[in-house]
Amino acid sequence: MQHTVKALFFDVFGTLMDWRVSVAREARVSLEPLGHSLDWFALADAWRAEYQPAMEEIRSGRRPFSKLDTLHRENLERVLPRFGVSGLSEDVLAHLNLAWHRLAAWPDTAPGLVRLKRQYRIAPVSNGNISLMVDLARRNGLPWDAILGSEIAGSFKPQPRVYLAACAALDLPPVECMMVAAHSRDLAAAATHGLRTAHVARPNEHGEGRGEPAPTVPVDFAAADMEDLATKLGV
Amino acid sequence: MQHTVKALFFDVFGTLMDWRVSVAREARVSLEPLGHSLDWFALADAWRAEYQPAMEEIRSGRRPFSKLDTLHRENLERVLPRFGVSGLSEDVLAHLNLAWHRLAAWPDTAPGLVRLKRQYRIAPVSNGNISLMVDLARRNGLPWDAILGSEIAGSFKPQPRVYLAACAALDLPPVECMMVAAHSRDLAAAATHGLRTAHVARPNEHGEGRGEPAPTVPVDFAAADMEDLATKLGV
Repeated sequence: MQHTVKALFFDVFGTLMDWRVSVAREARVSLEPLGHSLDWFALADAWRAEYQPAMEEIRSGRRPFSKLDTLHRENLERVLPRFGVSGLSEDVLAHLNLAWHRLAAWPDTAPGLVRLKRQYRIAPVSNGNISLMVDLARRNGLPWDAILGSEIAGSFKPQPRVYLAACAALDLPPVECMMVAAHSRDLAAAATHGLRTAHVARPNEHGEGRGEPAPTVPVDFAAADMEDLATKLGV
Repeated sequence: MQHTVKALFFDVFGTLMDWRVSVAREARVSLEPLGHSLDWFALADAWRAEYQPAMEEIRSGRRPFSKLDTLHRENLERVLPRFGVSGLSEDVLAHLNLAWHRLAAWPDTAPGLVRLKRQYRIAPVSNGNISLMVDLARRNGLPWDAILGSEIAGSFKPQPRVYLAACAALDLPPVECMMVAAHSRDLAAAATHGLRTAHVARPNEHGEGRGEPAPTVPVDFAAADMEDLATKLGV
């Protein structure tokens, strides 16, 4: 490459974290002792399905920026009645909402990041808020250089300023930054704004065989997982 | 304490970093090979003396927020002629300005932070910009959970919003956050806004015997260095 990449920006939900299995597990741990029995994966999927519409209210300008924790809470309260769950205490709701702070990383995430940090500045550029990113990093041993993303930019991906604010925070032009994601839509947006791109395959993100095994857009690198990305980048 | 402290916020220049010796060394490394001979410590002191007046222009509202790197550059160009230095190339000026990205930490800084991170979320709440904090962390092995401070808040300490934006980023009330600094002025401001405070003695910050050996304001903890603070906080 003519320009040397100096920073790697990471999508988090799906790319680094197995959110579906984790949220299903956390929901079960919270609700089963209260006597609820339901399809925990269906709940995780339904909760996640509210994610893009909620952010779109903000991206469109119809609503001012809110942390993702706030949107998650609204979405949770919207989804629970569909599964016959109601009357939860504030404590239970608050704890369940923070299921997203207790996600487990894919097994290759931490070792891959440790390798990549040797040569690159690494930061999440996620739609999650700072405290959520901090909790995931502490739980999973992710050695971030900084927490960038939606809360720094005051908007949500794929809005341009989320990518560009991350580059600006590190004083780098977009061409020296690379977005790493398991989602072609995220990478396409990053590329539009001049960043390099790397796809990481998460073919089972939404359940067996329901994820992106390969990018559907042109990318600079396509990797099988985070360790493979480190190898492909020569670290 | 009635409220448990969950996060520690750190001042950086002086508190964690020996900026004076480092800047003097960096200036010498940059300028001596070009034939300049001067009092390198005096240059470091003069450069640093422009720091508060430059930020005050922004704190007062007379000027919009700029990253500290930008202020450092203006201050450098203001100070160099007093030492008979002129005609430096853009490359030399840019590299010299980044002397602040190449500071050495006091020897107790990294081991103290490693211990403190076991029990607390830790973040710099400095007037330095994000890229500066990232470079210092990478160079000195500082295991931050997040980079907070002036660039997140769009202002400089001791303005209230710098402290309060750091608390808000971690979803914590000020009473569950503790500001750690070698400067009583910083701690007094933090306490005014409800944060806990810890003083760390850096009696030689500005040269032998020219620093704060003890706080001049009431604080929750007063420590000899970062390792002593970890001990006093029971980690």
